[in-house]
Amino acid sequence: MIRHLLRIALPCLALAALVACAEMPGAEQVVAKEALRGTGDLGIVVERAAGSVLVIETTHRRTLSQIDGLGDLSHASAVYSRDARYAYVFGRDGGLTKVDLLAGRIDKRIVQAGNSIGGAISQDGTLVAVSNYEPGGVRIFDSESLALVAEIPAVYDDAGSRSKVVGLVDAPGRRFVFSLYDAGQIWVADLSKPSNPGIRKFTDIGDKPYDAMITPEGRYYVAGLYGEDGLALLDLWHMEKGVERIMPGYGRGEAPLPVYKMPHMEGWAMAGDLAFVPAVGRHEVLVIDRNGWRERARIPVKGQPIFVMARPDAREVWVNFALPDNDTIQIIDVQTLAVSRTMTPGKAVLHMEFTPRGEQVWISVRDEDRVDVYDTASYEKLAALSAEKPSGIFLAARAHRIGL
Amino acid sequence: MIRHLLRIALPCLALAALVACAEMPGAEQVVAKEALRGTGDLGIVVERAAGSVLVIETTHRRTLSQIDGLGDLSHASAVYSRDARYAYVFGRDGGLTKVDLLAGRIDKRIVQAGNSIGGAISQDGTLVAVSNYEPGGVRIFDSESLALVAEIPAVYDDAGSRSKVVGLVDAPGRRFVFSLYDAGQIWVADLSKPSNPGIRKFTDIGDKPYDAMITPEGRYYVAGLYGEDGLALLDLWHMEKGVERIMPGYGRGEAPLPVYKMPHMEGWAMAGDLAFVPAVGRHEVLVIDRNGWRERARIPVKGQPIFVMARPDAREVWVNFALPDNDTIQIIDVQTLAVSRTMTPGKAVLHMEFTPRGEQVWISVRDEDRVDVYDTASYEKLAALSAEKPSGIFLAARAHRIGL
Repeated sequence: MIRHLLRIALPCLALAALVACAEMPGAEQVVAKEALRGTGDLGIVVERAAGSVLVIETTHRRTLSQIDGLGDLSHASAVYSRDARYAYVFGRDGGLTKVDLLAGRIDKRIVQAGNSIGGAISQDGTLVAVSNYEPGGVRIFDSESLALVAEIPAVYDDAGSRSKVVGLVDAPGRRFVFSLYDAGQIWVADLSKPSNPGIRKFTDIGDKPYDAMITPEGRYYVAGLYGEDGLALLDLWHMEKGVERIMPGYGRGEAPLPVYKMPHMEGWAMAGDLAFVPAVGRHEVLVIDRNGWRERARIPVKGQPIFVMARPDAREVWVNFALPDNDTIQIIDVQTLAVSRTMTPGKAVLHMEFTPRGEQVWISVRDEDRVDVYDTASYEKLAALSAEKPSGIFLAARAHRIGL
Repeated sequence: MIRHLLRIALPCLALAALVACAEMPGAEQVVAKEALRGTGDLGIVVERAAGSVLVIETTHRRTLSQIDGLGDLSHASAVYSRDARYAYVFGRDGGLTKVDLLAGRIDKRIVQAGNSIGGAISQDGTLVAVSNYEPGGVRIFDSESLALVAEIPAVYDDAGSRSKVVGLVDAPGRRFVFSLYDAGQIWVADLSKPSNPGIRKFTDIGDKPYDAMITPEGRYYVAGLYGEDGLALLDLWHMEKGVERIMPGYGRGEAPLPVYKMPHMEGWAMAGDLAFVPAVGRHEVLVIDRNGWRERARIPVKGQPIFVMARPDAREVWVNFALPDNDTIQIIDVQTLAVSRTMTPGKAVLHMEFTPRGEQVWISVRDEDRVDVYDTASYEKLAALSAEKPSGIFLAARAHRIGL
C-alpha cells in the first residue's frame, strides 16, 4: 500500500513543486536538491554570539542554512534524534531548541529552566534530558513534542537544598547518569517507566564534581572533581560496588600553573585500551589504561589542553588548548605517545569534530569567523566556511552513539 | 542566500504538493510524511528469493516500501552512502544496485561481472568496490554515477590466471583490502589516485582464504583459511611486518563434525579486547584476546555458529546457527563467557542486526517469512513484519562505520 502511494505521490510532488515555484529564480534547484536528501552527512555549527546555528554538510563541505533565535548559546551542546533529522540544542539560558536540519528552521523551542548546562537523549531516542543549574535538577522531555515527561529535582538534604547538575549522559537501557556539583553525588535515573523514574544515588563521591564522561560502550562513568584531586569512577555493570576513586594525582594538585579553563571531560579520547585525558592546569595530556584505570604516561604538549579527541581510526589523538595557546592544535601518535605534528589553524581554536569514519576534521576558529575542514590523512586544508564566532560543531552521526 | 530560498521554497513546496495531490486519497499524508525525512533510522531487508529489498524504519518498526528488480540476491550484502540515503546492494550475479531509500526505488543498476561476492565503500564515500569470482578481481566504481573508475584483475601467475576474490573490506585512507582464494594472497589497494591504484601484495598467506574481517578501527585484517587450520593476520599499521599466522588450532582441524556452512567472518564480534569467533564445524564460540591474538576461552553453544554479533553496549554477544539448529539464538554474557539465554524465534534464523545504540535487534526468520524485532533489554518481541524469505538486514547507520 505505502509503496504504491509513494510511486504515485513522488513524481506528482516533484512536478507540482516545479510548476508552483517556477517564478522564483533559483528556487527550483533548491527544492529539487533539498526536498529529498539523506541526513547522514549533516551537522550543525554553533554561532555563539549570534545565538544561531549553521546547518552544514560534509560531502561537499558547505553550509546549507543558518537558523537564528536559539538564545544564549555560550557552552551550548547538541544531541540528535535517532533519524538524524533533528538536533536538540541545549543553551546556557535554559533553552531547549529542536532544530530541523532538513527544513532549515526551528521545529520547537522551549525555555525550560533559568540556567542549564547540557543534555542527553535516551538510547531509544524517545526522551531528551536537560541538566539544570537553576533550579538544580534534571528535566526530561518527550523528544517528539518537547512536552515535560518527568522532573528530577536535585534535592540533597532535609532542608530541600537543590544542587547544580553537571555531567549528564545517557546510558544503555533508557538511563541517564549525572552528578550533583554542590552535593558530591552521582545519580543514575532509570526512565523505563517515565512517569515514575527509578533513581539510585551514590553519595560522598568527592568534592564538587564539575563534569563527567562515559566510555563509548556506556559502561564506565567518570566524574572530574573541582574541590580535590582524583576522579570518581562508577561501573554501571556493577553498581553494587559503588563509586571508586581513581587517579589520585589527577586534578589541580600542587597547581604549578593557574588554570585558565577547566578542560571538558567530554573531550576525553578513548583509543583502544587507552584514555587520553587533558591534565588540569598543566601542559600535559595524561594517558590512562582502562584496564585498572591507572596512569600509563604523561605527554608534554604546548599548553593547557581543552579537548583531546581520538581520530576514529584510533591512530592519532588531536588536542586543542586554553589561552594563550588557543591558536594551536597538536597531534599525538597513539603508538609512540608523543606529539607528531603541530598546526596553527588560527586565533581561538574552540572545537574539533571528526567525520564518523575519520577522513575529515572540522575545526572552529572563533576569532577568525571561520570553520576549517582538514583532510586527516594529508593534513591539508580542504575548505574554509564563514561562520560568526563559531564554537561547538556537532555532526548528525552522533545520533548513533551511546553517551553523547 | 540558501536560507532565504529555503524559506520561500519550502512552504511553496508543501502547498503545491497538497493542491496537486488532493485528488488521490491518502496521498497527502504520504507526501507530508515522506517528502522530508531523516535517514538515520532506515535500513533494508534482503528478500532473497524474490530479488527484492524492503526499506524499513526502526523508529516505528515498519516497512516503508518494497523495491524489486535487484537480480540474484543469494549471499547479498550492502553498504551505504555517506549521507545514508543510498544502499549499494551487491548481488551474487554481479549486479551492483544503488537503491534510493527515500524515493523507494532503484536509482542505478549495473551488472558488472558474472559472479561476485560482496563489496565495500571507501572511507570518504566516493568509491564503491566489488569483489568478483568471475572474472576474478576487484572493480571500483564512482559512488555517485556507478561509472567504472578502476579495475584490479587478480592475476597471480605468469600465465595470467585470475583468482576469485573474497573478504573485501575498506580501510582508512581510501584503501581496500581483499584476499585471493586461489592464490593464497592478501592485497592492499590504495585508491588515493583512483586512476592509478597502488597495490601491495602479500603472498603465501595460507591455503584458500575464504573470507575475512577487519577490526572496527580498521587496523587488523584477519583472513580465514579453507585449506588449512589457522588464520592470517595483517596489521595495517605495520605492513612491513608482513602477514602473521595466528590461532593455529582454528579451522576444520580434525573435523569432528561435518561443516554444514562455513561461518561468516563479518560475523565476528569485538567486545572490548575480546573477539568472539564462530568455531568451524564445532558447537563452540571461540574467544580471542586481541592483545596477542591468542585463544582465551571456548564457549559451548547449541549448534554450529554462523553469525556472532556483539550488542553495541558490548555486554552480550548473540549467536545464530547452521542447520539443524537454525531456529535458535543464544546469548553469551561477556563477563561470564557463558550462555545466559536461549531463544527460538522460528525456522531459519538467517541474520541479526542491532540498531546502532543497541536497544533493538532485527532478526530474519526466513522460513516463516518474517522479520522480528526484539527489545534487547527485556528480550520481548516488539514487532513482526512480513517479508518474503528474508535474509540479510542492513541498517543505514552502517554508513558511519569503518570496515563494513
